[in-house]
Formats: sequence, C-alpha cells, structure tokens
Amino acid sequence: MRDFSGDHRWLSLNTATVRKQGDFIAIAQACAKHGIRAVSPWRDQVAAVGLDNAVKAVRDNDLELSGYCRGGMFVGDASRHAEIRDDNRRCVDEAVALGAPCVVLVVGGLPQYSRPGSAPSRNIVNARAQVDDGISEMLEYARQASMPLAIEPLHPAYAADRACVNTTEQALDICDRLDPNRTGMLGVALDVYHIWWDPELMSQIARTGKDRMMAFHVCDWLVPTTDILNDRGMMGDGVIDIKAIRAAVEAQGFAGYSEIEIFSHGWWDRSMDDVLGVCVARHMTAV
Amino acid sequence: MRDFSGDHRWLSLNTATVRKQGDFIAIAQACAKHGIRAVSPWRDQVAAVGLDNAVKAVRDNDLELSGYCRGGMFVGDASRHAEIRDDNRRCVDEAVALGAPCVVLVVGGLPQYSRPGSAPSRNIVNARAQVDDGISEMLEYARQASMPLAIEPLHPAYAADRACVNTTEQALDICDRLDPNRTGMLGVALDVYHIWWDPELMSQIARTGKDRMMAFHVCDWLVPTTDILNDRGMMGDGVIDIKAIRAAVEAQGFAGYSEIEIFSHGWWDRSMDDVLGVCVARHMTAV
Repeated sequence: MRDFSGDHRWLSLNTATVRKQGDFIAIAQACAKHGIRAVSPWRDQVAAVGLDNAVKAVRDNDLELSGYCRGGMFVGDASRHAEIRDDNRRCVDEAVALGAPCVVLVVGGLPQYSRPGSAPSRNIVNARAQVDDGISEMLEYARQASMPLAIEPLHPAYAADRACVNTTEQALDICDRLDPNRTGMLGVALDVYHIWWDPELMSQIARTGKDRMMAFHVCDWLVPTTDILNDRGMMGDGVIDIKAIRAAVEAQGFAGYSEIEIFSHGWWDRSMDDVLGVCVARHMTAV
Repeated sequence: MRDFSGDHRWLSLNTATVRKQGDFIAIAQACAKHGIRAVSPWRDQVAAVGLDNAVKAVRDNDLELSGYCRGGMFVGDASRHAEIRDDNRRCVDEAVALGAPCVVLVVGGLPQYSRPGSAPSRNIVNARAQVDDGISEMLEYARQASMPLAIEPLHPAYAADRACVNTTEQALDICDRLDPNRTGMLGVALDVYHIWWDPELMSQIARTGKDRMMAFHVCDWLVPTTDILNDRGMMGDGVIDIKAIRAAVEAQGFAGYSEIEIFSHGWWDRSMDDVLGVCVARHMTAV
C-alpha cells in the first residue's frame, strides 16, 4: 500500500466537489495552485466553458484526468433510444478530447428518473436489462475510440433515481457478461461511499483484478446523513475505514489516483482554497 | 398468491406507524375499530403503558401479534455485554407475555451508535462478528422460551447506525451458521423498504424457505426521500413493486400478515383514523 502521508501526488479532484465555487477553468487553475495533479470533470462543467476551452485548461495547468463523469442513464422509453445512444457517444468523444483514462458510467435507475419524461415504472429488473443493453452498445463505440468504460456501482439509496447497479458484484457480473475476454475496455469505478457497507466488499474487490479496477473515489459517510444526495463527508469525518478499502484496492495492483468526490452543501459553501486545502490535508491523513 | 383486494384480514399494523397519535392502548382500540386483526408493538410503546396493560389491551381488542419490535443492538463495548444480554432476554420475556410469534432483531451498527457510549469504531467487520455472537447467545435463551428470532436485514443506508446486516443473503448466512438444522427458532423478517433494491432479492427469497420466513413488512420507497430515517412512503406512493415481492414471499409458503410499518413525519402528522383508513385501503390496492 502506497504511503500517502508525505505528499499528495496521488490526489485527484472530482470537480463536482467545488462546482459551486467556480467554473472548470477556475477549478483547473486552483488545482495547479494547490499542487493537485489530476481532476475528473463532469460533463456539464465542461459544457459550461466549452470543450475546447476545457481541453486547453487541462493542458495549460499540466493536469491529468482520473476519469470523466459521466456516461450512462441507459434506462428510458424505447423512443429515447437514439438520444441515449448518441448522448453516450458524445461523452466518449469528449473523454477522448480531454485525455481521460476512462468514462465513468452512472447507469440510471427507473426510466422516469433516468430519462425524465419516460413512462413511470417500478420494474427494476427490466431497468437492469436495459442497462446491460445500453452498456453493450456503448462499448462497441468506446472500443473504436479506445476509451475504457468504468461501471460505478451506486449506493442502494440511489437505486430508483440514479443507478440500478448497486453492488460491486453486480457491476463485475456485467463485466463478465459483456467483456468476458477482459480486453481492458470495461471495468469498474469503486467509490468508498457507495460500497463501504457491502458484506461482500473485500471478496468482490479481490475478484476485480487490476485490469478492471479503473478508478477509486473517496469521501466519507456521515452519521447522521441529513441529505441523501448532497451530504457526503470529508475523509476522516465519517465512519468509512478508507485506508482498509484502499489497501484492498491496491493489493489488486491499482496504482492510480485517489479521486476525492464530495457532494455537500456544507463544502460547497466554503471557498475554493479552503476546500482544496482540506482535501490535500485529509488525503495525507485519512486516505 | 392470496387475493388482498376484497378485505384486509391479513393486514397487521406496526405500531410505530402511529406512535405520535396515541399510546399502545389507544392504538389497539383504534385497530379493533378499523377491523385490523394484528399488530406489531415496539418495546418502548409497551413500556410506556406497562407490560400488563399492553397484554390486556391485546386481549381486550382480540388482537394477534405479527412480531415484537425489537431485540438486537448487539454491538458495543465488551463492558456492556451483560447489559446487552439482559436487555435482549427481557425482550424475549415480553414477547412471550404478549403472545408474539417472533422477536424482530435490529442487530445494531457500529458500537458508538448501537450502544451509545461505546468506543467509536469504523470496523464493520468486527461489528458483524459481534452480531453473530450476540444472536448466538440470545438464541439459547429464546429456545428455552420457544420464542423464534427473526433477523431483519436493514437497508445499507442504516449500516452505520442501526444494523450492519444489510442483505437477505447476509441474514440467511447467519441463520445457516447459527441454526444449521433449521429448528424454526431463527429466521428473517423481510421488509420491502430494506430489500427491494437488492439484485439478489428474488434468489434469496427463494432460498429462505417457509420455516425461516417469519415476518413480511410493507411500506414504500419515495423519490425523493427527504429524511433517511423518517420518510417512508405509504404503499402505492413509491417505486417498490410490492406485489411482486409478496408473490415471491408467498411462493415460499408464507401465509401470515403483511405488516405495515411506516416511519414518516407526514403520516405522524395525520389523525389515527385517517392513517388507519388509508392503510386499510392501500392494503387492498397496493399490497
């Protein structure tokens, strides 16, 4: 397990963490100032400044990417199929332009939430089948672009509205079905917030393998959690044994960035410098 | 699958659903008035009126019990062991006095939340080991009292503070370890709110068997959920395919009550008659 206590060279910032404090250009500049070497941008943040300007900001600030957030939302009415397919193809193209190592997939929940306007459904089994089909189709396009896809299992609290892939086992089962030969083009993005509770956590991390371990995200689970979406904690402020999970992930051969991804009204209310300073400090003590 | 559309004979009321509207005596009387034949009381509601008075209210109103809530909270400092053991023994004694068919176990999360005052820990693996030990010890006492124990897996959102048993598979694995001969003294209480999201839902229900299917609870998952503990929905108002889950549970031979258990500020703010009237109506249409 790598020693993070002396520097923060393996810290990446998911740009949603400071999305209220500035645009992507400002975030890229702030990262450079704080010695943060990598970011994982969200599509809406890139779109807000324009893809070309985002690419330039990455280059100008000598940044790497640890991922691109996000493709997915595969579940929706049949009439939306072309929209869903094309949206995800654009996502792959943007990831290529930005030099991302992978596209992170948030696969979508029930159709009415995944693609608003779709007919309401309670059929999560059917939603999961649509996810398989959607990833399969996107993977063909991604292969041609040599852009790996990383399925992110989301906490079961988001099963209805954000992602019906809710365990690492389920994500790896999809990888087995759609990429049985392990081409390196399909894997998982593991976020401690989503997976820390799982009784199968360690056995499924051990199953993942280096080739499918495409991204590792950190934050913390607060008790109490006052907002089901936007009350993630800073590493060290909650109950997740982050170091134990990182040790297991690195035992698989993972040697990439620990990407800090915090959605939190509390942290959005603080200054960019303040948040990045705390991220750097906690990366060294609590990750 | 039983037809619930014509009457509500298989409706049981978990008394937490109307805990703000009256004491256990008042709830028992209201149930009788609404033709509700069974209840599942909480220990604090029984204690508030006194066990003898609660027993009398059950008899006077010709009620059955579908369970007794709750034993458990097995995780805590070693110095708390006798307290935890004795607390759970009293719970068994109360369940016997009330004529409950089982004690529902909410097993506890991390020690600082399960038994406040215990030393803080992030070690959920250790918490789970304590749960095994605690159930094992309680089971000896419960056997002598012929009082079955029903492990309730809780939604992963409660893994830290309420229960570190978070899937049906995990609960059934405990049953296999502690009661391999399937004596009928250890099983599970399945609540649709906690398990609906599980990719292994149907396979684990199929694994359960009639002898371990001790209780079935219903409510609904709302989108958005505005309070992680107290925003459960009335059946039909959310995204859970309750009928599909009940069909699977009954395919195992379960023929007991569907117990309505709703923690919700919204429903606590309405009158007892109003809530029970809606429960009866939704039991016939949405369960």
